[in-house]
Amino acid sequence: MVSREPVAPGLGEAAAEEEQDELSRRCGDFMAQPVSGLRELRSRRQDMRSRMEMLIMETQSQVCRALAHVDRGAAFTVDRWERKEGGGGISCVLQDGNIFEKAGVNVSVVFGHLSEEAAQQMRSRGKTLKTKNGKLPFCAMGVSSVIHPKNPHVPTIHFNYRYFEIENADGTKQWWFGGGTDLTPTYLNEEDAVHFHKTLKEACDQHNPELYPKYKKWCDDYFYIKHRGERRGIGGIFFDDLDSPSKEEAFQFVQSCAKAIVPCYIPIVKKHSHDPFTPEEKLWQQLRRGRYVEFNLVYDRGTKFGLATPGSRIESILMSLPLTARWQYMHTPPEKSREAEILEVLRNPKDWVH
Amino acid sequence: MVSREPVAPGLGEAAAEEEQDELSRRCGDFMAQPVSGLRELRSRRQDMRSRMEMLIMETQSQVCRALAHVDRGAAFTVDRWERKEGGGGISCVLQDGNIFEKAGVNVSVVFGHLSEEAAQQMRSRGKTLKTKNGKLPFCAMGVSSVIHPKNPHVPTIHFNYRYFEIENADGTKQWWFGGGTDLTPTYLNEEDAVHFHKTLKEACDQHNPELYPKYKKWCDDYFYIKHRGERRGIGGIFFDDLDSPSKEEAFQFVQSCAKAIVPCYIPIVKKHSHDPFTPEEKLWQQLRRGRYVEFNLVYDRGTKFGLATPGSRIESILMSLPLTARWQYMHTPPEKSREAEILEVLRNPKDWVH
Repeated sequence: MVSREPVAPGLGEAAAEEEQDELSRRCGDFMAQPVSGLRELRSRRQDMRSRMEMLIMETQSQVCRALAHVDRGAAFTVDRWERKEGGGGISCVLQDGNIFEKAGVNVSVVFGHLSEEAAQQMRSRGKTLKTKNGKLPFCAMGVSSVIHPKNPHVPTIHFNYRYFEIENADGTKQWWFGGGTDLTPTYLNEEDAVHFHKTLKEACDQHNPELYPKYKKWCDDYFYIKHRGERRGIGGIFFDDLDSPSKEEAFQFVQSCAKAIVPCYIPIVKKHSHDPFTPEEKLWQQLRRGRYVEFNLVYDRGTKFGLATPGSRIESILMSLPLTARWQYMHTPPEKSREAEILEVLRNPKDWVH
Repeated sequence: MVSREPVAPGLGEAAAEEEQDELSRRCGDFMAQPVSGLRELRSRRQDMRSRMEMLIMETQSQVCRALAHVDRGAAFTVDRWERKEGGGGISCVLQDGNIFEKAGVNVSVVFGHLSEEAAQQMRSRGKTLKTKNGKLPFCAMGVSSVIHPKNPHVPTIHFNYRYFEIENADGTKQWWFGGGTDLTPTYLNEEDAVHFHKTLKEACDQHNPELYPKYKKWCDDYFYIKHRGERRGIGGIFFDDLDSPSKEEAFQFVQSCAKAIVPCYIPIVKKHSHDPFTPEEKLWQQLRRGRYVEFNLVYDRGTKFGLATPGSRIESILMSLPLTARWQYMHTPPEKSREAEILEVLRNPKDWVH
């Protein structure tokens, strides 16, 4: 899968060396060495696969360091894993910390050939794919994360940013980005909801004012627990199949979204992580965690795709599930309670920034 | 859907009345009045739908009373619900008892017209179905239950016995039975496993010695958590599409299985419900409950079908989920531990009765 492109055309020897040092300096801040290895990244450093791998590694590192700083105690365990069929990943997990019950930030960079089943799924999404001898070379990479805090007044966050490349039979390539960031509070705090959505909107607006409204709605539609008639949380942004206006601009947009994760979430964590809470509030959190599990196992495309893919790393896929969850028969919050208040918003999503 | 058959042909007036009293006497022991109502059951009491409804109501009552007796404290709440599209059900739930954390026994009797999607699913199972103007009148009924005890040394049990009728375009009917009983221990107790399987085998052997081995294997194959490479529990029996050797004999077999539930499970509950346990053993139980949730939400056909069916009662379908569950990243029991011992059996099912 390694395509050898001319190294930094137009740059002199010295400048090229300097840029290489820059690459290895950036790698020094990562949670682990990148999946592809420094030498390979250097050899194709103008390639989108290299730039995206650097971005997802950087995002993993920024988020993990910000979370560890807030937690003031627990450290992330870093697991590096390889995929027999090609590629691998780096899973960072903090479990049973001071502030966080379970926080996972996972990077994966996988490549090889798409199975006929997976290719079929792509086609059903409207992609025109032609296999060569039934084979479809692909490369998929992304950073994904779910953070479950202990305190029921600190919301759960999920984000995922990914890049996909497929090689057609005629040698041309198709590529697209996907991703999103969304918040799942146990109790509604309007100020937090506005801060979260506003930060995401600002990131989107730098690129095109049409993006936020479109991706906000997509998010509300995607994280829908159909059998409950509720959304998983209060939304955020979600997009897929992004291949316009250009590869460069799409990447810049994804980069802005990735950079918005820490500022949209960490202030909310700091604000509430020492809020007092009652056993009843903890119980409501556990019930909401049950709904989180229902969404992820029954509807989430990424989870379902992962569980059905031979050779995928189950522990990294199911990292998204909470440490603990609860299912209580016929639990219905009393009218006008704070529990009923969040349910109302989950049933009828609100516009938070206008 | 009510078919008016000649009432008890060949019986005199007095005998017919006596038989009617017998019916109302049996109903007196139920957790609630049957879904179809006494008058309707009387009017077609030789019909399989009536006989099966009586059997599932009786099974619900026997199991609930045996569990309540062992629990010595908590009572079952009884919810009667109606399905707008036709039929309804009776859900009995005991939550947070002395012995049981969550015990649900659910009866449902639903009828109406199969959706094209549901009919398609039946076809994909090899059934030849011809709709009349795109409609397919059906009747489905069953008793299903999951019992999650508190003590990690008392296993979880699940059972389900059901009957299905479909009317073809030409007015002829197709029918079949399905069901099974299976055990999910947190720790392996060989004596219990043998008792459980032997009791089921005896119920099967009364009808045909080929049934137990066939349905034992079917159970091991069905309750498979593919992404983990483990079974949900130590199995039992499972069967579907049973329409031979005759309707009467199939019903007799289902009746024997239903009658075996209490003797295969209650002695195990009594034996272990006061066993001492450590916090580590409770934690392992919670992790195994997480796997239970994974199986039910990702693979179980009944749950998936229920969640996808408009108008179905979600609380009754998800009654099967444990009160509490846990997901811990990369939890691996030490070699030769009691946790590793049960995992070995879940990965490689054993023959318990030969």
